[in-house]
Amino acid sequence: MAETINVMLAGPRGKMGTEALKMIETTDHFNLVGCIDRKYNGKTIKDLEGLPSLDALIYTDPEEAFERLNADVFIDLTNPETGFKHTKIALHNHIRPVIGTSGFSEEQLDELKQLSQTQQTGIVIAPNFAIGAVLMMRFSQMAAKHFPNVEIIEKHHDEKLDAPSGTAVKTAQLIKEVRESKKQGHPDEHETLDGARGATVDGMHIHSVRLPGFIAQQEVIFGQSGQTLTIQHNSTDRQSFMSGVKFAVEEVMKTDQFVYGLENLME
Amino acid sequence: MAETINVMLAGPRGKMGTEALKMIETTDHFNLVGCIDRKYNGKTIKDLEGLPSLDALIYTDPEEAFERLNADVFIDLTNPETGFKHTKIALHNHIRPVIGTSGFSEEQLDELKQLSQTQQTGIVIAPNFAIGAVLMMRFSQMAAKHFPNVEIIEKHHDEKLDAPSGTAVKTAQLIKEVRESKKQGHPDEHETLDGARGATVDGMHIHSVRLPGFIAQQEVIFGQSGQTLTIQHNSTDRQSFMSGVKFAVEEVMKTDQFVYGLENLME
Amino acid sequence: MAETINVMLAGPRGKMGTEALKMIETTDHFNLVGCIDRKYNGKTIKDLEGLPSLDALIYTDPEEAFERLNADVFIDLTNPETGFKHTKIALHNHIRPVIGTSGFSEEQLDELKQLSQTQQTGIVIAPNFAIGAVLMMRFSQMAAKHFPNVEIIEKHHDEKLDAPSGTAVKTAQLIKEVRESKKQGHPDEHETLDGARGATVDGMHIHSVRLPGFIAQQEVIFGQSGQTLTIQHNSTDRQSFMSGVKFAVEEVMKTDQFVYGLENLME
Amino acid sequence: MAETINVMLAGPRGKMGTEALKMIETTDHFNLVGCIDRKYNGKTIKDLEGLPSLDALIYTDPEEAFERLNADVFIDLTNPETGFKHTKIALHNHIRPVIGTSGFSEEQLDELKQLSQTQQTGIVIAPNFAIGAVLMMRFSQMAAKHFPNVEIIEKHHDEKLDAPSGTAVKTAQLIKEVRESKKQGHPDEHETLDGARGATVDGMHIHSVRLPGFIAQQEVIFGQSGQTLTIQHNSTDRQSFMSGVKFAVEEVMKTDQFVYGLENLME
Repeated sequence: MAETINVMLAGPRGKMGTEALKMIETTDHFNLVGCIDRKYNGKTIKDLEGLPSLDALIYTDPEEAFERLNADVFIDLTNPETGFKHTKIALHNHIRPVIGTSGFSEEQLDELKQLSQTQQTGIVIAPNFAIGAVLMMRFSQMAAKHFPNVEIIEKHHDEKLDAPSGTAVKTAQLIKEVRESKKQGHPDEHETLDGARGATVDGMHIHSVRLPGFIAQQEVIFGQSGQTLTIQHNSTDRQSFMSGVKFAVEEVMKTDQFVYGLENLME
Repeated sequence: MAETINVMLAGPRGKMGTEALKMIETTDHFNLVGCIDRKYNGKTIKDLEGLPSLDALIYTDPEEAFERLNADVFIDLTNPETGFKHTKIALHNHIRPVIGTSGFSEEQLDELKQLSQTQQTGIVIAPNFAIGAVLMMRFSQMAAKHFPNVEIIEKHHDEKLDAPSGTAVKTAQLIKEVRESKKQGHPDEHETLDGARGATVDGMHIHSVRLPGFIAQQEVIFGQSGQTLTIQHNSTDRQSFMSGVKFAVEEVMKTDQFVYGLENLME
Repeated sequence: MAETINVMLAGPRGKMGTEALKMIETTDHFNLVGCIDRKYNGKTIKDLEGLPSLDALIYTDPEEAFERLNADVFIDLTNPETGFKHTKIALHNHIRPVIGTSGFSEEQLDELKQLSQTQQTGIVIAPNFAIGAVLMMRFSQMAAKHFPNVEIIEKHHDEKLDAPSGTAVKTAQLIKEVRESKKQGHPDEHETLDGARGATVDGMHIHSVRLPGFIAQQEVIFGQSGQTLTIQHNSTDRQSFMSGVKFAVEEVMKTDQFVYGLENLME
Repeated sequence: MAETINVMLAGPRGKMGTEALKMIETTDHFNLVGCIDRKYNGKTIKDLEGLPSLDALIYTDPEEAFERLNADVFIDLTNPETGFKHTKIALHNHIRPVIGTSGFSEEQLDELKQLSQTQQTGIVIAPNFAIGAVLMMRFSQMAAKHFPNVEIIEKHHDEKLDAPSGTAVKTAQLIKEVRESKKQGHPDEHETLDGARGATVDGMHIHSVRLPGFIAQQEVIFGQSGQTLTIQHNSTDRQSFMSGVKFAVEEVMKTDQFVYGLENLME
């Protein structure tokens, strides 16, 4: 019997936006009151091909949308530039933003934090909405206190250009924060083939597999005498982000703080 | 530069006890001041074949041992009956016990808790000293709040008689505490061969593999639309318990409370 | 510089058919000469929405199609009933069939085998086109001669109704053919919770995991004293079948035999 | 009701030798007729502490041992130098050798091959007795014909000095023999941290994990559009070699050929 949360969405026609519409449609206590889009002012979502049958009105003018719509939460799934503008207007209107981007600068984050405080309006900014990935990083940080020896293996499709993945590097940095710096492996170990031991971040080794047939997978392996502990996240579909968006919408209603990263919403 | 902790040990010749001696010997800030054994009164550890070269004196009379030895922490690796007697004497002497048994009754635990309080002496009782297993259970409980669909696979050597393992059942019970009861899988699913879907605890499915070549392994698998999160613990050697004993010795020094389960010592 | 193979396809608008069209389009030495469909007689593939831009003509009358088209290989991705009719006409016209169905009866298979022999025309019927799954089963059969202790874990999404999966049961049956019958596990083992040890086929244990987030995965685990060997197949997309179709098309050109199962085309 | 095979063993007191004695003792149709050792001439195995209770006589003079003992098979678990001498005497006496070393030179192997032929006496030389590892390599070679994209991850304890492991490199070389040379991954991929993509052998990537808690593990991962196939071997104990020794003893009785590598004994 959760209380209904009235939601606005910017970017309903994007890949993420369309998934968000489906999630809102199938969540009993979420109610879509309207959308912001670059096009189709005055139409409703159900008028557009391929979108769920929702009555919510589309606005192309964000100022107008925030004034007219009686929303509790504003979800932005556009891009960093547009999203930043929307977020400021939302805070000015005391509508709690849930923003999924890793593209804001330090200055922009500071500005939003201050605005959130002066407006006494909660906001959640999540660089990663995949709850499983966020938990993997959090558990890794917790485990590292007891298991300082750790290696990371991430596996992606072979269309991915950069290695290691951003998530792998971020995981290593989070671990670095909580363990004493150490060089892992035997002091006298050596590579008979360059690169065999992977990349290193603060003595931790990271290995990047690139093969067709994989989507996105990461395992963080902790070892100590007589035991290993492995935390693995496997992402098979964009839908994986929607449970994170849903969670953020529910949690932003309980706070009037500026929250960066879903991990800070988890007990 | 951790301060030295003076340690007593009961059961030095058992399998666990011998590992504990090695651990104490190789931990700079642990100092073994004496042992309790059924035999060899007046001998030292280094007199006994197969044990580390430590000067600690052996006592067969526990009362005498606790009186004479200037210990901070008492480690008991005997059995529930003997261990219970030892623990009471230790508390009476304000020596902090670290006890590794799952064999105490509710009444015994209550008695020790009260004694700990009246004596204002910390105590740690750990049914499982494998830190990796304890973390696995803790992370599982945390993950279940976000991933209510979960299955457990545990793999052991084929000399193990009972299935599922105690750790698997305990993990399921811990998860049960934090999620709403639910029957998993499709409502219309059916087994064409009995047992295919495993055992169930509160709708969670548990699968027990028994094959030569395995020692002890468990994976807890969480799934939701588009992603899975897996937490796996692999135990290859009895040494895996020693990091838990070491951790408990360090932590019992910081508390004057009764603590049951290593998970309650972890942040 | 492989020689061009002229290909006919029945069922171009189905999910598998559409993937097959893409595969043919991107394979240099495959040339689509025409299709059989229930509708759209006289149109070309590129006329239909969502299909690749191929000029191949569509026929609704199979007799006419086989007469007019100068094809080397006929791929059928329709259903068992229609496929059976098509296959017979193809053999009569000396066009080699590649058929993906597990739905033919013993009688139908016998009839096709005889027809293939009298027509001296090769044919490949594959109940499973996923080459990885076929290899998994083949390797499992080979490994079982040296590792008679084996268990199977298969993981699928929780929309799947039956457990265990057909592939798991088939794998167990293939293993049964090559090892002496045996009851695995300790003779005195017992379940404290029913079903923990899974389903059994000839003493082998099969475990079925059903969780959202999985697509289709199977691992076959072999154990003996001191070692385990695991063979795992993970299917993430229907595309996985297309490498099998392609392989079958290439191989059927090299044979005038009746071949049932891709495994019989592998060295 | 297998026929009894009379076995001689050189090196009974080494780690491998002791395991071999246990294996012979527990194999009904194997009968130990005598041993060669550097010491203890005239004693029996059961006279020596820590060895099984077997009556077999110990010889320090190999010539004498081979003359006096009525053996079918000679197992050598000493070292390359001693083993080479023993093997030649065994062949001269028409006793089939089973030799576990990777240390013979090409010249030595040639000499033994010729001697085996002139003496018409079968011989098995196995650089690796772990049947699981041998199967892993064989399956990898078979899979590579259908899955040319492959990466190898090997995990060992952190006392291991060299990376990658010999088995990983050998696996890559075996795969190289059967697939066309190719550079894997995206043509434009780049490492933002050196070594992330691992070592390369003929375009295949190899990743070496070194953590306490691991013993010896390798997985060979094959990927293609929509599917992955993984073959994993996990070694937990020296006992893993004994099923290979046993298999070689049984197989050498069936051949009068020179066989190098257990893989050549498998169908």
